[in-house]
Amino acid sequence: MSERSLPTLEVCFSPALLHLFDTRNRIVVIIDIFRATSTITAALDNGAKCVIPVASVEECIAIGKQTENSLTAGERDGKVAAGLEYGNSPLEYPRTFVEGKTLVLTTTNGTRLLHMVQDANAIVIGSFLNLDALCQFLIEQKKDVLLGCAAWKDRFNLEDTLFAGAVVNKIGQYFSINCDSACAAQRLHEQSKGKYFDFLKDGSHYKRLSNFGLVRDMEYCTTPNLHHIVPILEKNELVLYKK
Amino acid sequence: MSERSLPTLEVCFSPALLHLFDTRNRIVVIIDIFRATSTITAALDNGAKCVIPVASVEECIAIGKQTENSLTAGERDGKVAAGLEYGNSPLEYPRTFVEGKTLVLTTTNGTRLLHMVQDANAIVIGSFLNLDALCQFLIEQKKDVLLGCAAWKDRFNLEDTLFAGAVVNKIGQYFSINCDSACAAQRLHEQSKGKYFDFLKDGSHYKRLSNFGLVRDMEYCTTPNLHHIVPILEKNELVLYKK
Repeated sequence: MSERSLPTLEVCFSPALLHLFDTRNRIVVIIDIFRATSTITAALDNGAKCVIPVASVEECIAIGKQTENSLTAGERDGKVAAGLEYGNSPLEYPRTFVEGKTLVLTTTNGTRLLHMVQDANAIVIGSFLNLDALCQFLIEQKKDVLLGCAAWKDRFNLEDTLFAGAVVNKIGQYFSINCDSACAAQRLHEQSKGKYFDFLKDGSHYKRLSNFGLVRDMEYCTTPNLHHIVPILEKNELVLYKK
Repeated sequence: MSERSLPTLEVCFSPALLHLFDTRNRIVVIIDIFRATSTITAALDNGAKCVIPVASVEECIAIGKQTENSLTAGERDGKVAAGLEYGNSPLEYPRTFVEGKTLVLTTTNGTRLLHMVQDANAIVIGSFLNLDALCQFLIEQKKDVLLGCAAWKDRFNLEDTLFAGAVVNKIGQYFSINCDSACAAQRLHEQSKGKYFDFLKDGSHYKRLSNFGLVRDMEYCTTPNLHHIVPILEKNELVLYKK
């Protein structure tokens, strides 16, 4: 980015497309609406000391054992994974439960994407829950931004894309956009007319999670701005961003 | 697909995502609106004997030399590639020129995707130019369908997606759809309100091709139903589908 031009804003729809994007000197936003990044946002705003994202259940158990005052959490196919203590619902982590604790979390998609990004300027967490706080942060940084959708086992998904579109809609004017994925995301966001939960009823994830009885979770995860914070990766821990 | 259920309809946004989809026993539609599949459709309807899609300029030259009454064609960066005779514009191939000839064609994206699909039941060509003929064909076959967007160097693009959405919009009722890409494509198509050319002015490809003076090409490529045919791959040649 030259000093006089606007920073760029791009959207990557799947970890399987990440290699097409330059992540160096960029702020990469990890997006996994259902439900990793929503859960991370809620847990940190509710006072968790930090969230340690890990790739596997085994690693989750091992780090949980090494870490004082920690919780291990993660689901596979909508159930708490064998050997872990808690699930992947933002509603499981109210302040009364999570305050001061370290949440060691493994998820199918969001965690994986986060670990794939190696050389970014910063890695932050995006969800509808912290939409405005994230947008404010991205505007202030004045750096190139890549919105990275965690997708579902590398498949494009509607909810992460809709959120990317919400971000493009809010901050697009401060960035230079020459990315068809960003245009498409923004158009989808327009179509939703802000009714995110209803819009996502078409999605395959809605059907999958409904079958697990997680409709209330999805309602929570599609409610904008319940948490005015930005989780940021420092070493291997997600913590609250502080100016 | 069980006999009593509807066949499935899916959309793949990029060759880099193709491995996520099963192409066996499916009809795969290759979509490269700007401009490979538009050119193939126009050339065949205008009387070309067949179109031979090839991966490289070298192969194009070699097959052209071996093939009687052939034309070699292909562009790189908006110009006829060195060693080839013609370009990748549907407007270059009127009946008076192309009738009875074999067009040996190499393109950056569409040709590549076509060669990546190995085990489909059938491979056919889709473009706005043959939208209705293609849809009629797909309904009649009663088989699972994968709409494959050629994209741009593996990056998601707006025009191929918009066309996929037009197909989903027309034939979705005859298929079972559990694919977020198909939902998103259909929503984008809704947004376009049928004004395809205008809708695509946001796209990176529009900007790129405008710089090469190809606005008229794009207008042609976004006009539905100028050619009522379906190109289908037989061995290594694209020919007119006949019932």
